[in-house]
Amino acid sequence: MKKRVVLALGGNALQKNGEATAEAQKKVAIEVGEAIAELADKYEIIVAHGNGPQVGNILIHEESASTEKAPAMPLETAVAMSQGQIGYWLTQAINNAFAKQNKTKKVATVVSQVVVDRKDPAFKNPTKPIGQFYDAKTAKELAKKNGWVVKEDAGRGWRRVVASPKPIDIVEKKAIVELVKDGAIVIAVGGGGIPVIRTQVLKRLKGIDAVIDKDYAAEKLAELVKADVFVSVTAVPNVYINYGAPEQKALDEVKVQEIDHLKKYGYFKAGSMLPKVEAASMFARLGGTGIITDIDHLKEALKGKAGTIVTK
Amino acid sequence: MKKRVVLALGGNALQKNGEATAEAQKKVAIEVGEAIAELADKYEIIVAHGNGPQVGNILIHEESASTEKAPAMPLETAVAMSQGQIGYWLTQAINNAFAKQNKTKKVATVVSQVVVDRKDPAFKNPTKPIGQFYDAKTAKELAKKNGWVVKEDAGRGWRRVVASPKPIDIVEKKAIVELVKDGAIVIAVGGGGIPVIRTQVLKRLKGIDAVIDKDYAAEKLAELVKADVFVSVTAVPNVYINYGAPEQKALDEVKVQEIDHLKKYGYFKAGSMLPKVEAASMFARLGGTGIITDIDHLKEALKGKAGTIVTK
Repeated sequence: MKKRVVLALGGNALQKNGEATAEAQKKVAIEVGEAIAELADKYEIIVAHGNGPQVGNILIHEESASTEKAPAMPLETAVAMSQGQIGYWLTQAINNAFAKQNKTKKVATVVSQVVVDRKDPAFKNPTKPIGQFYDAKTAKELAKKNGWVVKEDAGRGWRRVVASPKPIDIVEKKAIVELVKDGAIVIAVGGGGIPVIRTQVLKRLKGIDAVIDKDYAAEKLAELVKADVFVSVTAVPNVYINYGAPEQKALDEVKVQEIDHLKKYGYFKAGSMLPKVEAASMFARLGGTGIITDIDHLKEALKGKAGTIVTK
Repeated sequence: MKKRVVLALGGNALQKNGEATAEAQKKVAIEVGEAIAELADKYEIIVAHGNGPQVGNILIHEESASTEKAPAMPLETAVAMSQGQIGYWLTQAINNAFAKQNKTKKVATVVSQVVVDRKDPAFKNPTKPIGQFYDAKTAKELAKKNGWVVKEDAGRGWRRVVASPKPIDIVEKKAIVELVKDGAIVIAVGGGGIPVIRTQVLKRLKGIDAVIDKDYAAEKLAELVKADVFVSVTAVPNVYINYGAPEQKALDEVKVQEIDHLKKYGYFKAGSMLPKVEAASMFARLGGTGIITDIDHLKEALKGKAGTIVTK
């Protein structure tokens, strides 16, 4: 039996040095695709990925060129668009990595809706800035017109802010697991998933403008598909204590309890290592293995020989 | 055994009266979703769909708001984005139609690459106008800069034109068929699919800017997944001879040979009924049933009681 692994790729992973053309991002995707294809003999693989810079650019284009005839798409639909975009690049990169090995293997991107709770406290305090910068007047007008919350962003202008609620379910989980069982590499919950709620009485799905953290969404997916391992693939080989300082220390094998302890003392930064460490220890708490490492150490980390490995 | 049916939904199907907001298109998707969910007890369903107006608007936004930091995505990636967008709307609409019936059933959108031949004669004569209108000077500058072919479009300004090559293979065909066998309704080859070629020597997949006709792509999918029925779902209940004239005649059950005969005498218009009729008769020639009808007559047409039904 192959071990089932869910990888969460960083949202910036495809944009090296901020190069945002399709061509530049596809080039980076080739490296990612080859690293993933290398794992396919030994593991069942599901790839989740971020979409920060990509959905940001989609929103900038949609909003700044919006007209009555060609109106801007809302955030939730823009997330779906970014899933198509990045999913396509990754699928093709993995297809070509297999072709290089003279193998053919199924690879499929599944457009994914991730359910959040309308009562999640995050909706009362939207904090995630998205889309373009506006001057104060325009921002306030847009807020009124579209029901947005806008905030001044560190002296750089005004931006819309949205909630970042926790994922509670993944609509396409069964389709994803069937594909994996059938031998496919699946790309899913891109950008943390298209945020949807279930309406109270009729239990209908309804898109909602929000941003779901891709590490939390990928960890939820790992739970739901009964994965053995969850890996947050980031820019550094390990989680560090006192990163950048002389007393810097890489964590290798740690227990959930140790993570809890370090977290309490503020060793992990919100918006940076904190969600990755939380997702990995959430998964470990349930009995799985949570790993944080970079793409170059991924193969070794899965053998237990690199990366920060969190267990119960 | 349930019959396997591939539906090709018209690209304009989600934009009633040209209403292009996400909200308006989702409303139309609800009706489409309910019609599809009604068929699920009796048939295995794969839904292909057009993307003309949607990808048009994506390109308008991408191109008119392109900057160095947030560069425009090329057409092939824009098709992938429209697959995410429309696939999401349709998936959710079908999910909700099942919820209304107190059923849960797997529904999944698979991002789809469709292979075309680099030597397809269409590449020598690009005819399909896409994206926004430009003045002559700007159009010619863009042509030079991006390697586009541009043409004057009926006095309305200049536009980019791209090739419309024939589909020859679908990269995700096996994943699509596995999902259908596992009981899922699958949305695939949106917008005719993301156009890709296989490079000559290394056989790598590579996106190419082109537009694949959604009826031809859906018919190719119907062949590859060994469907029993291919339906081109359009705005009218039947194919007509002399449409709009006093001697107008609806076609009900026709043979491929009759279609060939009518085609020869110019009864079907290119860019309108011709690709639908050609796709249906292509599928019928291989032994399947090809149907052309509208969404209201779909259920009856599948029973052989409505629509234009083409057989060998």
